[in-house]
Amino acid sequence: MTQPLDIAVIGATGTVGETLVQILEERDFPVGTLYLLASSESAGSAVTFRGKNLRTRDVDEFDFAKVRLAFFAAGPAVTLSFAARATAAGCTVIDLAGALPAEQAPAVVPEANPQVLAALPTPAVIHSPSAAAVALAVALAPLKDLLTPLHVNVTACLAVSAQGREAVSELARQTAELLNARPLEPRFFDRQMAFNLLAQVGASDEQGHGLLERRLVRELRELLGMPLLSISVTCVQVPVFFGDSYTVTLNTSEAVDLLAVNAALEAADGVELVEAGDYPTPVGDAVGQDVVYVGRVRGGIDESRQLNLWLTTDNVRKGAGLNAVQLAELLIKDLV
Amino acid sequence: MTQPLDIAVIGATGTVGETLVQILEERDFPVGTLYLLASSESAGSAVTFRGKNLRTRDVDEFDFAKVRLAFFAAGPAVTLSFAARATAAGCTVIDLAGALPAEQAPAVVPEANPQVLAALPTPAVIHSPSAAAVALAVALAPLKDLLTPLHVNVTACLAVSAQGREAVSELARQTAELLNARPLEPRFFDRQMAFNLLAQVGASDEQGHGLLERRLVRELRELLGMPLLSISVTCVQVPVFFGDSYTVTLNTSEAVDLLAVNAALEAADGVELVEAGDYPTPVGDAVGQDVVYVGRVRGGIDESRQLNLWLTTDNVRKGAGLNAVQLAELLIKDLV
Repeated sequence: MTQPLDIAVIGATGTVGETLVQILEERDFPVGTLYLLASSESAGSAVTFRGKNLRTRDVDEFDFAKVRLAFFAAGPAVTLSFAARATAAGCTVIDLAGALPAEQAPAVVPEANPQVLAALPTPAVIHSPSAAAVALAVALAPLKDLLTPLHVNVTACLAVSAQGREAVSELARQTAELLNARPLEPRFFDRQMAFNLLAQVGASDEQGHGLLERRLVRELRELLGMPLLSISVTCVQVPVFFGDSYTVTLNTSEAVDLLAVNAALEAADGVELVEAGDYPTPVGDAVGQDVVYVGRVRGGIDESRQLNLWLTTDNVRKGAGLNAVQLAELLIKDLV
Repeated sequence: MTQPLDIAVIGATGTVGETLVQILEERDFPVGTLYLLASSESAGSAVTFRGKNLRTRDVDEFDFAKVRLAFFAAGPAVTLSFAARATAAGCTVIDLAGALPAEQAPAVVPEANPQVLAALPTPAVIHSPSAAAVALAVALAPLKDLLTPLHVNVTACLAVSAQGREAVSELARQTAELLNARPLEPRFFDRQMAFNLLAQVGASDEQGHGLLERRLVRELRELLGMPLLSISVTCVQVPVFFGDSYTVTLNTSEAVDLLAVNAALEAADGVELVEAGDYPTPVGDAVGQDVVYVGRVRGGIDESRQLNLWLTTDNVRKGAGLNAVQLAELLIKDLV
């Protein structure tokens, strides 16, 4: 039996951190002592693990020599401040914030590029990428041997939960106000989110690309091992609580063999292929599940060198917490 | 002053037909006698025009020789049954259902291909195309002289109102049930629509393409005068009452001059360009307006031969009723 491992989770009170702790428990990860850490403002609140309430401590005062593995699920600033301290203490770091450069912390999704793990130094620093990159890598990696994408086009329809609990309660509150014909007062979002679509998620740069859009392109190229792949992406905030969805179009250099694509997706780890004629939805299929649902597998209209897909996945679970725990499961043999 | 014209509106009790009647009044269209027609089931109910309640009559019993112009805003079956009778009576037909072949009823959007009107026989039969094709044609036609699209990729996020009043009340009812933690019973849609995305709108064919997706490709090619243009489209039903939105990516044969694109959109009829850094939304901008809002005008990430756009428009107004009335305004000179 695997020896238990002492672990720290930084950002344990956030949506992703809390799900991560829950997944460690669900998957019976061999945890010895679990230290829940947070920035000084959030420290003190409690999170449940194996039936016990664990109090979160201030990350600033933590001695990383106490643990062998640390999940960084707080913002990029927290990773930048404390990841080096953790590795200096001999602790393996899994960063969910995408704060470190790729040379220092390669992005890994077990279903896409597990081979990267073998080449890492000890202690390893690994980047568990954004929910969008995880979902797309899980669905596209199994197709790499079948087709050569010239261009990938993605519209990412993102649930509000990726923005945290405040965003979730804001969507509920706005919806209730509108249904009761009360005047709408946006607070978390800068405008009406209920029954509306917002065409920009987070900050954008001078060229008009969202930082999240740029991050997705960077991470997906890395995960697929295609550094020059042409990818266009638009992130849209949709009035959905949980579950991200993606329309994906690949223009390829060769005619697409749809039977082979279906067979590859059917056989792929982490993918649940929905039968032709039906399609998966975030609420009806993805939420609470560990897989990326794929549907509407079809070619182009009058164009044989094209593949269209619809994906939906639990943005908080597979998108973030689960991928990080799966990485830890693969690393565990070297750690204990 | 233009002489008034006797007119028939078929499908006057539907969402589109009712908006069409309202737009005729708003734009002070020179209507003499207005005949509101519907299939026998819907005949009898009343619609307001210029302060009067007009009763709808059974289209089957109508003598089309009484009018010079007929708008067909009921389903394809109604157009197929009665359009020939109208033209035989010398009546100009504007079909909003897309029921007739393109050779017989060319699709026209005044901002995109008004030149088609001049070449029509008398009485003319014209097709006012789907809301999606109208929106895309209005935004893309002004760019035809600036760039050569090799491939157009569209994700169409469609409001429920395109499916009629029942769909609108179903979204409201489902939302209220969920907020009140009552069990959800889908009626109009086959699953939960509130806080969810449905990746298929209407029926689809054996290749998995939605009929609406095929229609959009066919109509957009016709409107842009590019019969071989490669277009991929996915229609997604979103939990929005009114206002359709589109993410659009054009891969072009030449580098895109973004300044020139912005200038062309700024100058284009029927387009409202939203300044860089901001973006339009269906609820905040499009609903109740006559223009197609365009925002997030940007190039590709590491790709100069690409243009990305976000569009949003009132699907019932500009998308359907208004385009048909604009066509009638252009035709009117020949009719009176």
